[in-house]
Amino acid sequence: MEPDAPPIMDGAIVVSGDRIESVGPREEILGGYTAEKIIERPTGLIIPGLVNAHTHVPMTLFRGLADDLPLKTWLEEHIFPREAKLTPELVSIGAELACAEMIRSGTTSFIDMYLFEDTICEVVNRVGMRAWLGEGLFDFPSPAFPSGFDALKETERLIEKWGDNPFITITIDPHTPYTCSPELLRAARKLQEHTGAYVVIHLAETLWEDMEIKKRYGCTPAKHLDNLGLLGERTIAVHVVHPTEEDISLLGERGVRVVHCPESNLKLASGISPVKDMIEKGIKVLIGTDGAASNNNLNMLEEMSTAAKIAKGVVQDPTALPAKLVMKMATTLSGESLGVDGLGTLKPGAPADVVIIELDSPHLRPCYNPVSQVVYCAGQGDVSDVICGGRILMEEFALKTIDEKELFSRLKRALDEFI
Amino acid sequence: MEPDAPPIMDGAIVVSGDRIESVGPREEILGGYTAEKIIERPTGLIIPGLVNAHTHVPMTLFRGLADDLPLKTWLEEHIFPREAKLTPELVSIGAELACAEMIRSGTTSFIDMYLFEDTICEVVNRVGMRAWLGEGLFDFPSPAFPSGFDALKETERLIEKWGDNPFITITIDPHTPYTCSPELLRAARKLQEHTGAYVVIHLAETLWEDMEIKKRYGCTPAKHLDNLGLLGERTIAVHVVHPTEEDISLLGERGVRVVHCPESNLKLASGISPVKDMIEKGIKVLIGTDGAASNNNLNMLEEMSTAAKIAKGVVQDPTALPAKLVMKMATTLSGESLGVDGLGTLKPGAPADVVIIELDSPHLRPCYNPVSQVVYCAGQGDVSDVICGGRILMEEFALKTIDEKELFSRLKRALDEFI
Repeated sequence: MEPDAPPIMDGAIVVSGDRIESVGPREEILGGYTAEKIIERPTGLIIPGLVNAHTHVPMTLFRGLADDLPLKTWLEEHIFPREAKLTPELVSIGAELACAEMIRSGTTSFIDMYLFEDTICEVVNRVGMRAWLGEGLFDFPSPAFPSGFDALKETERLIEKWGDNPFITITIDPHTPYTCSPELLRAARKLQEHTGAYVVIHLAETLWEDMEIKKRYGCTPAKHLDNLGLLGERTIAVHVVHPTEEDISLLGERGVRVVHCPESNLKLASGISPVKDMIEKGIKVLIGTDGAASNNNLNMLEEMSTAAKIAKGVVQDPTALPAKLVMKMATTLSGESLGVDGLGTLKPGAPADVVIIELDSPHLRPCYNPVSQVVYCAGQGDVSDVICGGRILMEEFALKTIDEKELFSRLKRALDEFI
Repeated sequence: MEPDAPPIMDGAIVVSGDRIESVGPREEILGGYTAEKIIERPTGLIIPGLVNAHTHVPMTLFRGLADDLPLKTWLEEHIFPREAKLTPELVSIGAELACAEMIRSGTTSFIDMYLFEDTICEVVNRVGMRAWLGEGLFDFPSPAFPSGFDALKETERLIEKWGDNPFITITIDPHTPYTCSPELLRAARKLQEHTGAYVVIHLAETLWEDMEIKKRYGCTPAKHLDNLGLLGERTIAVHVVHPTEEDISLLGERGVRVVHCPESNLKLASGISPVKDMIEKGIKVLIGTDGAASNNNLNMLEEMSTAAKIAKGVVQDPTALPAKLVMKMATTLSGESLGVDGLGTLKPGAPADVVIIELDSPHLRPCYNPVSQVVYCAGQGDVSDVICGGRILMEEFALKTIDEKELFSRLKRALDEFI
C-alpha cells in the first residue's frame, strides 16, 4: 500500500540488493523471479518505511525521568544536569535503544539532532537504518564541544567522514535562533554553501522564543533566519508552532521544509502548530516524534494518528489533514524533501525500505481502507518485519541487527552509575 | 502500581475468588499463601484494569469504513444506512471484536450505549468483562425498537433480567438532548427514580447541538437537562466539549460525572473539551474511547496519552492533567463514580480486575516512573495478562475467553453479506 494509489491486494515485492526491483500481484511476481529468501505474510500489509523527521535519539535515556513540569524546571533541573554528564558510551546506548524502538514501530529513516553525533552515526551504521544526523550548535559549550564553532568544525569533519555512506547524511544543526548568535548562524550558512548539506533548526517552538527574538532583533524568528540567508529548500525547520501569516508565506516562498511534532508540542505545552494553513500555502510538512524525553515515545504510528486528529479538532473541520495526506507526510513527502529518489515509495528502483504490518488483530479488523488502518489504528506491536536498504532489520517481530537483551543490560549498568 | 501510592517493587498480588485478597512485596506474600495457579512476570508491571467510560462496542463493524468527512455526510451516507441493516448477530460479532480489542489493551470495564443491548450483555457475560450497558433511546425508530418508549420498556426488562449479575449493570441511555423529546427524557428520569439506574447521555458534543437546543428550549443543553431533573450524581454526561462556565458550575453542583473522549472529539472535529476547568470545579471526569467508527480504536492506553497531552497543549500549561491524574481518571475515579467498592484499585477486598504490562521492550525502557510509562509510552501490544473479577481473560498475550480465529471468520462472513 502506498498513500497515492489503490492498494494491491494479494501483492508481492521483489527486493534486489538495496533496491525494490518489482511490485505487483503476487501470482504475477512469483512467476517471474526466483528468490534467495521469501518472507510470506498472508495477513500482512506492506507499506513504505516511515520517516521520523525529527528526533534526538539518545534522549531515550531521559524517557519519563521528569514529566508534566514547566519547560524551564524540566530543562534546568532535570535534563541539562544529566546532559552535562553525558558520555559517548551513554549516547551510544541511548541511540541504539531509540533505533530498536523505531524499527519496532515501522520507522526506517530518521532525522536526528544531538550531541556526540559521530557516535550516533556509528550506531546507525551498525544497526542499518537510514539517517540524517547533525551535531547541535550552540553559543555556549555543549557537553561535547567547547563552542558552536568547534561543533561546526566537527560537522565539517563528519561530512567528510561519512560522505560515501549511502545510509548516513550529515546535516548542519544550529539549535535555535535564540541559542545561536547571528555569527554562528552565518557560519552555519557558509558551511551549507560549501557542502550543500541540509540545515536543521528548531524554529518558532514557543511564544517565549517569539518574544525573545523580537526583543533581540526586532522581527519574528523566521524573518530573523531569512535575514541571515538561512531559509531555503535545504532548510528543515522543526516545530513552527507560532508562525505569523507572513512567516508562513515566507517559509512557503523559500521552499523550507517544516517538521510537525504534535505530541511533543502538546506535552511541553508549546501549543498547536497551524499545519493545515502551512500545507495550504504549499509548504511541505513532515512529521517527527521529537525526543523520547518530551513525547515520551518514538512511535511514528501514534504520531501520525495524533497529527491527523489534532489538525481536525483545532480548526473544527473533519476534512482537515485526512489519513492519506498524513501517510504521505510520513513517507513520500519526506522522501521528496530529503532528495533520495523514490524514498517513501514502493516503486521499482526505490530504496528497499519496506515495513510489514500484521493485520490479524482485533483492533485492525475489519479493514475497509488500509491507509485509515495504519494512521488511526495500528500500533507499535503490529509491525512484524522491517527492511531498510534491502537489509532485514526485523523479521517476525525479532530484531536482527540489535541484541536487545545485551542492550538492556548495558543500559541498566550505565544508568545505575549515571542517574 | 496504583496512581496514588509509590509502586511496590518486586511485588505480588493474591487473588481469591473474584476479589483481591492481598498485595505486597513478593517474598512476604509468597510465604503466606499456597496458590492453585501462579502467574510470574519478572518484568511485568501490575496495574488496575482500565475503565473505558464511553463506547459503542458494535461500531467496530464500521471501523475505518469512512473517515475524514463532515459529520452529516459521515452519519447520513455511511453510518445510518448500515445501522439500519443491523441484526443481533452482527451486533454480537462487533461487540465480541470490541471486547477482544479492549482486553488486549488492558481494559476490564466499560460503559456502552448502543442498540440490541441485550445481545451485548450476552457477549459481555460470556467474555467475562465488567460493563454498564444501555439501550439507546431516540424520538425516532431505532434499528432495534419502533420508539424511544419501547426502548425504555426494554431497558426496564433488562434491569430485571440482569439485576443479579455482578458484572453487568443496565443503564438508561437517552441518546442526546436533541434526539430525545422532553417527554422521553422525563420518562427516562422516572425510570431512574424507580430503579436507581445510571442515566448515560451524550451532552454538549458540538456547537450545532448548542445552537439547536437554544433554538428549541432557550437554554444550553446542560441547563435543559437540569430543567428536566436529569442532572445528578447518577448522571454520566458524555463529551461535554462546549459547556459554558455556568454549565460547568451546574454540572459540578449536581455531582454529574463527565466522560472525556478526546480522540473522537478531535477526529470528528467537535472541538476540545475544557477538562482542566471541569476538574478544577470538582467534577469527576472519566475517560472513554467512544466507538471505533470515530476514533478508530478502543485503546485506553492511547486515549490516556492523548488526554494528558491535549489538555496541556490547549491551555499551554505543561502541568495541566499530569500522568498520575490521567491514570486515576481511568481507574480509581471511575471506580468511585460507578459505585463499585474498590474498582480501579489494587487494594485487598477490591474486585480482582488486574492487568499486567510487559515492560521488557525498548519503548518502555528505562523506567523511572511506571505511571509515566503507562500513560505516555505503553501501547496495546504491551499488555500480557488480563484478569477480571478473578477470571483470566488473557494470559501471556493469548485471549482465554474469546476464540479470535473463529471470531474473525464469523466477522468476515457477516460483513461479506452486510457491506
